[in-house]
Amino acid sequence: MSFNTFGKMFRFTTWGESHGPAIGCVVDGCPPNIALSQKDIQKDMNRRRPGKSKFTSQRKESDEVEILSGIFQGKTTGTPISMIIYNEDAKSRDYETIKDKFRPGHADYTYFKKYGIRDYRGGGRQSARETASRVAAGAIAKKVLQNKIGKKFKVIGAVIQLGLLGCNIKNWKDKEIQKNSFFCPDKSVTKLWEKYLLGVRKSGSSCGAIIEIRASGIPIGLGAPIYSKLDADITAALMSINAVKGVNIGSGMYSALLSGLENSDEIRQKGKKIFFKSNNAGGILGGISSGQDIIASFVVKPTSSILLSRKTINKKGKNTEISVKGRHDPCVGIRAVPIGEAMMNCVLLDHYLMNKAQCK
Amino acid sequence: MSFNTFGKMFRFTTWGESHGPAIGCVVDGCPPNIALSQKDIQKDMNRRRPGKSKFTSQRKESDEVEILSGIFQGKTTGTPISMIIYNEDAKSRDYETIKDKFRPGHADYTYFKKYGIRDYRGGGRQSARETASRVAAGAIAKKVLQNKIGKKFKVIGAVIQLGLLGCNIKNWKDKEIQKNSFFCPDKSVTKLWEKYLLGVRKSGSSCGAIIEIRASGIPIGLGAPIYSKLDADITAALMSINAVKGVNIGSGMYSALLSGLENSDEIRQKGKKIFFKSNNAGGILGGISSGQDIIASFVVKPTSSILLSRKTINKKGKNTEISVKGRHDPCVGIRAVPIGEAMMNCVLLDHYLMNKAQCK
Amino acid sequence: MSFNTFGKMFRFTTWGESHGPAIGCVVDGCPPNIALSQKDIQKDMNRRRPGKSKFTSQRKESDEVEILSGIFQGKTTGTPISMIIYNEDAKSRDYETIKDKFRPGHADYTYFKKYGIRDYRGGGRQSARETASRVAAGAIAKKVLQNKIGKKFKVIGAVIQLGLLGCNIKNWKDKEIQKNSFFCPDKSVTKLWEKYLLGVRKSGSSCGAIIEIRASGIPIGLGAPIYSKLDADITAALMSINAVKGVNIGSGMYSALLSGLENSDEIRQKGKKIFFKSNNAGGILGGISSGQDIIASFVVKPTSSILLSRKTINKKGKNTEISVKGRHDPCVGIRAVPIGEAMMNCVLLDHYLMNKAQCK
Amino acid sequence: MSFNTFGKMFRFTTWGESHGPAIGCVVDGCPPNIALSQKDIQKDMNRRRPGKSKFTSQRKESDEVEILSGIFQGKTTGTPISMIIYNEDAKSRDYETIKDKFRPGHADYTYFKKYGIRDYRGGGRQSARETASRVAAGAIAKKVLQNKIGKKFKVIGAVIQLGLLGCNIKNWKDKEIQKNSFFCPDKSVTKLWEKYLLGVRKSGSSCGAIIEIRASGIPIGLGAPIYSKLDADITAALMSINAVKGVNIGSGMYSALLSGLENSDEIRQKGKKIFFKSNNAGGILGGISSGQDIIASFVVKPTSSILLSRKTINKKGKNTEISVKGRHDPCVGIRAVPIGEAMMNCVLLDHYLMNKAQCK
Repeated sequence: MSFNTFGKMFRFTTWGESHGPAIGCVVDGCPPNIALSQKDIQKDMNRRRPGKSKFTSQRKESDEVEILSGIFQGKTTGTPISMIIYNEDAKSRDYETIKDKFRPGHADYTYFKKYGIRDYRGGGRQSARETASRVAAGAIAKKVLQNKIGKKFKVIGAVIQLGLLGCNIKNWKDKEIQKNSFFCPDKSVTKLWEKYLLGVRKSGSSCGAIIEIRASGIPIGLGAPIYSKLDADITAALMSINAVKGVNIGSGMYSALLSGLENSDEIRQKGKKIFFKSNNAGGILGGISSGQDIIASFVVKPTSSILLSRKTINKKGKNTEISVKGRHDPCVGIRAVPIGEAMMNCVLLDHYLMNKAQCK
Repeated sequence: MSFNTFGKMFRFTTWGESHGPAIGCVVDGCPPNIALSQKDIQKDMNRRRPGKSKFTSQRKESDEVEILSGIFQGKTTGTPISMIIYNEDAKSRDYETIKDKFRPGHADYTYFKKYGIRDYRGGGRQSARETASRVAAGAIAKKVLQNKIGKKFKVIGAVIQLGLLGCNIKNWKDKEIQKNSFFCPDKSVTKLWEKYLLGVRKSGSSCGAIIEIRASGIPIGLGAPIYSKLDADITAALMSINAVKGVNIGSGMYSALLSGLENSDEIRQKGKKIFFKSNNAGGILGGISSGQDIIASFVVKPTSSILLSRKTINKKGKNTEISVKGRHDPCVGIRAVPIGEAMMNCVLLDHYLMNKAQCK
Repeated sequence: MSFNTFGKMFRFTTWGESHGPAIGCVVDGCPPNIALSQKDIQKDMNRRRPGKSKFTSQRKESDEVEILSGIFQGKTTGTPISMIIYNEDAKSRDYETIKDKFRPGHADYTYFKKYGIRDYRGGGRQSARETASRVAAGAIAKKVLQNKIGKKFKVIGAVIQLGLLGCNIKNWKDKEIQKNSFFCPDKSVTKLWEKYLLGVRKSGSSCGAIIEIRASGIPIGLGAPIYSKLDADITAALMSINAVKGVNIGSGMYSALLSGLENSDEIRQKGKKIFFKSNNAGGILGGISSGQDIIASFVVKPTSSILLSRKTINKKGKNTEISVKGRHDPCVGIRAVPIGEAMMNCVLLDHYLMNKAQCK
Repeated sequence: MSFNTFGKMFRFTTWGESHGPAIGCVVDGCPPNIALSQKDIQKDMNRRRPGKSKFTSQRKESDEVEILSGIFQGKTTGTPISMIIYNEDAKSRDYETIKDKFRPGHADYTYFKKYGIRDYRGGGRQSARETASRVAAGAIAKKVLQNKIGKKFKVIGAVIQLGLLGCNIKNWKDKEIQKNSFFCPDKSVTKLWEKYLLGVRKSGSSCGAIIEIRASGIPIGLGAPIYSKLDADITAALMSINAVKGVNIGSGMYSALLSGLENSDEIRQKGKKIFFKSNNAGGILGGISSGQDIIASFVVKPTSSILLSRKTINKKGKNTEISVKGRHDPCVGIRAVPIGEAMMNCVLLDHYLMNKAQCK
């Protein structure tokens, strides 16, 4: 079972509700003797934090992580690392008016039906607030991988489609992503996207997004066929993020349109280097990393909490309508970038450790 | 860990290589007192079997399943059900010529690099032959779900896109799928697809496919957030099938193009019935089944073993070329339909049992 | 993997070091809609708490549990329950003098050798302080079992041997245990034990203890053969407690001395009742509960931290001597009673849920 | 979950009933490139085999293991190793007379009550015949450990008490065990034991036994606190063997009688060697191996199937009597020696791999 625990060798367990006193996470299986400080984690937390720009939720959370265990004299000890993040700006009043209604597109209805009880404040456990814990865990995974693999290791994500608007992926610049308010890798579309998203917000509706995560410097051999294939684990990790409805590895759905001749990546040797002539496989063959960049993309559906009125039912099963006030992102997909990176980091470390056990 | 084991409460472990003496599977966690015979399983095996038509591999395998344990007097006993399928038509000679080369698009290279040893006969463990075991396990899961949920329960899959050619999903007929040689739900496109696939085969290349799996009659409440969400588990299950590169739930990748207003499925009550006005969510909200049909689709990349010559390297790391003779499906995606159904059945039973433990 | 997580369906993950800011635990898989308050947990915490009598460590800890998630309006919601206990009286100075030496009988040496780093303050993670978290988790398991099984359900433990001194188990009185400062079920030996233990402490040494845990009102059918047998899981649970070196089920080691005729418990029917004429099996047959009382006992070795001088080596591998000042229980076994009860409660709930999934 | 699967990194799943067509086991997680043949496994199988002497069951089974997968050109490939053992001498008739009665001391009653169905032939799944599969898995684990650790690695078990009769453990000779028909390490008691066991058999009853397993050459650092402690895992492994009712690590239950001064093993350095002056801890401190010999002992209760008449009930819940004809060992404990060794080998390899992942 693994209800609220993710991972096999490198595992994290998250807890906490949107409007409870705090949320947090316990990381287990972290190798010992890795230098780790609160700052290493906070850096990534800040990338995910709400309230930073006009395009993300105006909820103000400092999202400061406190480390409660597992570190001694600046280094991991191999024991569980417990982290806590206090909820500061939880306006439960906002939710009083909707507490007896089920918001369409949300898990209100299914949670209530499954558990027979519902913490309606901000979505309770189903809130994307839970993902803050993932980012904290991912920051640790990243630190370990940097230590084990070295500088060539890198995981970076970007929004490559915002609602109806794409971007030119050939313009991908890592540096641009870091400063772009949409985490978009292509500077040339920023203005257009801005205008578009303002329009979406003004309309009282929302839009979806597609995020791509790239991992480079990955050793060959990560992935444990048949049922712990690297791509299956990455896919499950990304699909577990709130509002994600589809995941592609490499050419993904697009590979249906390719012929066998076009799709299979040819292999070449030049000097001591072995390389592939293309990367339709997204760096994974037979569930095992090939040494190429690992490329995964996922879609985040449009925010379900919108100002416009929607038909729904209430707890008594009667027809009613709902419009959600609160403070919501017009496109939750944007903030999914650091979350996707975090999940990728965790899966990669998990498989790095598993591979070390069995095949090194 | 779960290298070759799938599932949590309902678990199966598969074993065997394409050209070894046999393959098989051990199903564990099957509830007791369910009527089960070899015939129940064989029926599904026959749907996946190679050598049936000109569009699938000409390898002749009767794929007869033998049950070795777990059944007493026609009923499951709650103990492990071991099944074995002997390999009959394993022509290892076909592979002698390629044993020192890595086939592009296959896992030859990554297996060899990971394990330092490679069973080159028919791809060894990476062969899609392993999926026969999944179909056997899925047949058991189906039988149990029919027993527990009743007649309204149904899982059915279909090929909805063959290479460049789609079909009209509104023409979906379950009955058509059963007799269609492509498992296509839309009779009107069959002739076109036939012609197309013959062309593909003649060209010495191959094509991909998109498969959709629909599950109906599913109780509300299956799925265990956060890290055993029903959709995440379905996605991982489908992604673990050979050659799958992308998975969608409901509107999937397409939901990036929808507005929040269009995407969230409105809820209505009429008499005693509660229903949704659309099903973009694919029957899953917050990782929990909503009672709507569960809809998942996945892409199978074009067969990598093609007659046309491809650039690659050999075991010594030297440049060379390869063209794969053998007996290969021009579109492996077709035979993926019963495999996708099997995985869906297994995931659903797994979550059915988990939910029974915790929430009933 | 399950480094710091215990359980399958009902799972808890503990974290924290003896002298860090806090310790805690995340309970996952708790069924929803169970009334649960901080008081329910605190009651059990207080039984384990140090500083209560002259026979236990003088470390003063209020051991107040704070619940951070998983409860809404007084009921469990089915989401993870996070609990935190702040460390108050952590005198790290006491440990400065021994930080470079390995205490015999402790895990100082093995932790250092395994992890290459050692949190020497109070034993760090290897401290029995971790068991406070288990008691908190066990209190929740107990509450759930009372709710599901009803009043007849009861788990109670007692010290039945203190060092060289036994007691008359036929005098077992549940009520006596509750007020006895040794958790001894036989009032008649209390004075003798007191005198003995004072002597042990005066000598600067320590003594061991044997604890017996009895569970009654247990439904028939708990336990999942072959590798999740109820007795195997109970045994592992008890053996995981600090300083435990042996576990018996029913007649345990003593059954070597019985003949087959004496040992197998005969079964009888009287009216509608089925009963056994003896209970050598300790309520478990073939790894499955039989409806009889479940009886498990375990030994806690004598406290390793003693005033008397012991030979050891230091971090540099040089010979030296050590005597441990600090505040230590002359018999840690006494405080193991509520811990053993907690582990029994957790295992029973775990199997209760598993059995519900598969066999009901 | 792990109903019929044992282990974490090195895992085996067993299947099969006493009187079904076959039993078997799938080993998963075995490292690649280890030389392994059927002979390596058969050697250990023969030590456990019934029908070898007058002191063990007269059931004639050649117990020949057939390997069906996972080996290529004499080496493990890292894929699952499936093994099958056909049942040859399954006399189901013997059981017809008792099929409606529950044998006292057996799991007949609990299996029937749990699963609502019972394979009465030879105890079905609850038969000790299942342990043949464990011995096969253990033989593989041993081969891997010999390869990884080298010649100094050794696991050996012995019967140290037969019913009421002990032996002098100081006379322990590995060589004696190999030829002794009781696996007794002390030659001097053999004649006495023989006489005693003949008497037990003549009486129509049976006796228990205590087995000790010693593992030497074990690296420091195996074991994953808190809930995968090496001793907790060994204990669960041994307790999962049929008829085992108690497990000790090192001094075990006896440590209750020791003072802290006597019990904690002092540490010394001499030249480059670090050693302990005693081994009450049984080679494990804080759940982690210390480099000393690992010593575990367990009790096997007297065989429950005896010729003498016992009171019991039948399937209808009516009082009746039973005496079990069949072919039974007067002391099943004797044949538990190779099984205990097998479980120890599996646990050690499991932890060896886990430790390699995290701490090397």
